[in-house]
Amino acid sequence: MTDAPLPGPASLRNPLGLTVELGRDTPIRLDCGVEMDSVTVAYQTYGTLNADRSNAILLCHALTGDQYVADPHPITGKPGWWNDLVGPGRLFDTDRYFLICSNVLGGCMGTTGPKEVNPATGKPWGQDFPIITIGDMVQVQARLVDHLGIDQMFAVIGGSMGGMQVLEWCASRPERVFAAIPIATAARHSAQNIAFNEVGRQAVIADPEWREGRYMDHGTKPRRGLAVARMAAHITYLSEPALHRKFGRNLQGDRDAFEYGFGAEFQVESYLRHQGSTFVDRFDANSYLYITRAMDYFDLAAEHGSLANAFKGTKTRFCVVSFSSDWLFPTVESRAVVHALNAVAANVSFVEIQSDKGHDAFLLDEPEFHATLSGFLEAAAVRRGLPPAGSKGETP
Amino acid sequence: MTDAPLPGPASLRNPLGLTVELGRDTPIRLDCGVEMDSVTVAYQTYGTLNADRSNAILLCHALTGDQYVADPHPITGKPGWWNDLVGPGRLFDTDRYFLICSNVLGGCMGTTGPKEVNPATGKPWGQDFPIITIGDMVQVQARLVDHLGIDQMFAVIGGSMGGMQVLEWCASRPERVFAAIPIATAARHSAQNIAFNEVGRQAVIADPEWREGRYMDHGTKPRRGLAVARMAAHITYLSEPALHRKFGRNLQGDRDAFEYGFGAEFQVESYLRHQGSTFVDRFDANSYLYITRAMDYFDLAAEHGSLANAFKGTKTRFCVVSFSSDWLFPTVESRAVVHALNAVAANVSFVEIQSDKGHDAFLLDEPEFHATLSGFLEAAAVRRGLPPAGSKGETP
Repeated sequence: MTDAPLPGPASLRNPLGLTVELGRDTPIRLDCGVEMDSVTVAYQTYGTLNADRSNAILLCHALTGDQYVADPHPITGKPGWWNDLVGPGRLFDTDRYFLICSNVLGGCMGTTGPKEVNPATGKPWGQDFPIITIGDMVQVQARLVDHLGIDQMFAVIGGSMGGMQVLEWCASRPERVFAAIPIATAARHSAQNIAFNEVGRQAVIADPEWREGRYMDHGTKPRRGLAVARMAAHITYLSEPALHRKFGRNLQGDRDAFEYGFGAEFQVESYLRHQGSTFVDRFDANSYLYITRAMDYFDLAAEHGSLANAFKGTKTRFCVVSFSSDWLFPTVESRAVVHALNAVAANVSFVEIQSDKGHDAFLLDEPEFHATLSGFLEAAAVRRGLPPAGSKGETP
Repeated sequence: MTDAPLPGPASLRNPLGLTVELGRDTPIRLDCGVEMDSVTVAYQTYGTLNADRSNAILLCHALTGDQYVADPHPITGKPGWWNDLVGPGRLFDTDRYFLICSNVLGGCMGTTGPKEVNPATGKPWGQDFPIITIGDMVQVQARLVDHLGIDQMFAVIGGSMGGMQVLEWCASRPERVFAAIPIATAARHSAQNIAFNEVGRQAVIADPEWREGRYMDHGTKPRRGLAVARMAAHITYLSEPALHRKFGRNLQGDRDAFEYGFGAEFQVESYLRHQGSTFVDRFDANSYLYITRAMDYFDLAAEHGSLANAFKGTKTRFCVVSFSSDWLFPTVESRAVVHALNAVAANVSFVEIQSDKGHDAFLLDEPEFHATLSGFLEAAAVRRGLPPAGSKGETP
């Protein structure tokens, strides 16, 4: 196992983008049956691991997220997805916690995925990459955590697909998770969400530039198909009230008359087109196919006989969070998780945050949400025997 | 003005598919400013117009609907979209009422639209077709009704985009509508709905076979793009509970294990793919662009200063219907119409039908919905002085 800096702009907080190669000693056996003996994982860390290795928090990113939680994105230059929550004295206090976030297996930001080179052919994997699951992603994360010498994480936290990873951790490796915060997520992907994912995949596959997944060999990209996929998905990340508040029926350029054409008449159209075209610059189309597929496969109840079974005997402390206007991962999905946890007498608190921002609320400035995380983490830290805030992470 | 049979399989009930050419005497001036001096309208009728021409019902079809309300579709052979509601003794009793349904301007089932020949070039209009609005569709319908010698329709009825036409009729030509039933609709297209339409349009436009709209000149079709557009739209026509009940996470072919691939693993995927590919056989891609655009432009309040203004002084009797699980045209949109009608002291009843079938409920077997239509029509018929049921449509 070797650590090497990841190419790309250096982060201010964590100058080294880290990578590690896993699977050389013991191959990683995927759910589909394929064994991989070399998986590179790209990850970022923030803060310092304490002496008894009890202050680690694993942050799990969402479908199109990445390990740049609190660093400028190497391609877009934009701040990390939870940039404002990470730092000394902040919610994820880097004076107290050691934060880890790794790009998921199948991703496109440095971890082994379809855009990386297949050692067997010397060419990008493309569609030869094996099908992956949320369980496979978590297996690779567990190997990374092993590599870092951490037995039990203080907390595993994530929203959306990140929340699926949190639930998978708790079901498959409960002893390694002291506290868990699954946010805006579900224990299984719904029929409607599979349907939306399938629309996105078909949009990519319909693009002739996808070339059966071998577009990299041709120096091209299914730009238009991937942009359409992103546009459709982006609608599901917002709520109707949020779209109405933000754009309503306002015309592009604040015009007051229609142009009567197929240009972007309405602001919401130009916003969506922008979301589509910028996404293509930072994300790989095949990764989009593989990762959406992994979400579709996720169904903890089916894997464990029942959802309660998945959490039987758990000692993990849970804080389940949903958002009232999230229609992609509605509150009813979080409630199903809470009911299963109650059925096995787990330690669980549940908060539905009132917000009109839809699914994306977990990435936005939502004070009640942040207060919820903060309160739960503080109480869990006390239970775990971590030093109180302001003590610079030294164990007492 | 000439009537001529429409080519295609003959209907059992109405052997002649009718067409009429309008605009020769007085050109039809569209909202975008273009004047058309020849618009062919394809329409179907059921039942017989009575002597005092007081028993006409205009049925307005939805985005991808057509005039084949109760005839087998000439391309798919499937029964009409309200097939079971039309006939002697049925809800739309052909012994009592004279039903008219015309393919909308911009459509692709015989009415002038982008796939028809542009007289100026001798080639299909394609993207040279002028941008149209719901108001333009209604203007053309009004010309058709003039042609049929009908001053006032007993009722104008339609769901979804058909409901927009109903509202437009009531706002622009109130004296010509005795009773109106706008179903599962809105007085303006929401930001979210514009966004979904834009995704569909971009999917079509992204397909290289669209060829800037001139695909017919090349003997091709943007099949894949239009299929993706339909898939995305189709999700919005259903509800999450309906998808869950119908498909859940069931695997294709009732398999009990994953195949780990990008084929249709889940039944909901194969269902959506089927919806996409069959749609392409019966619908024109440019028509899809033009008609979705017309919906986006619709905003009665903006056109009339306020929604109440749009209905000021109306003598029309309204029955506004919504469905509880319709998230494309949610009940709140119908309520906005009802509030505006109340504000001008209109005669209005409002029913929200409890259904888990989503937006498409208006096309499905919903007994409470049908009872609502029946009760309202019966009371309105008495008011209008139409003979009671069973009297074969003769005026007393």
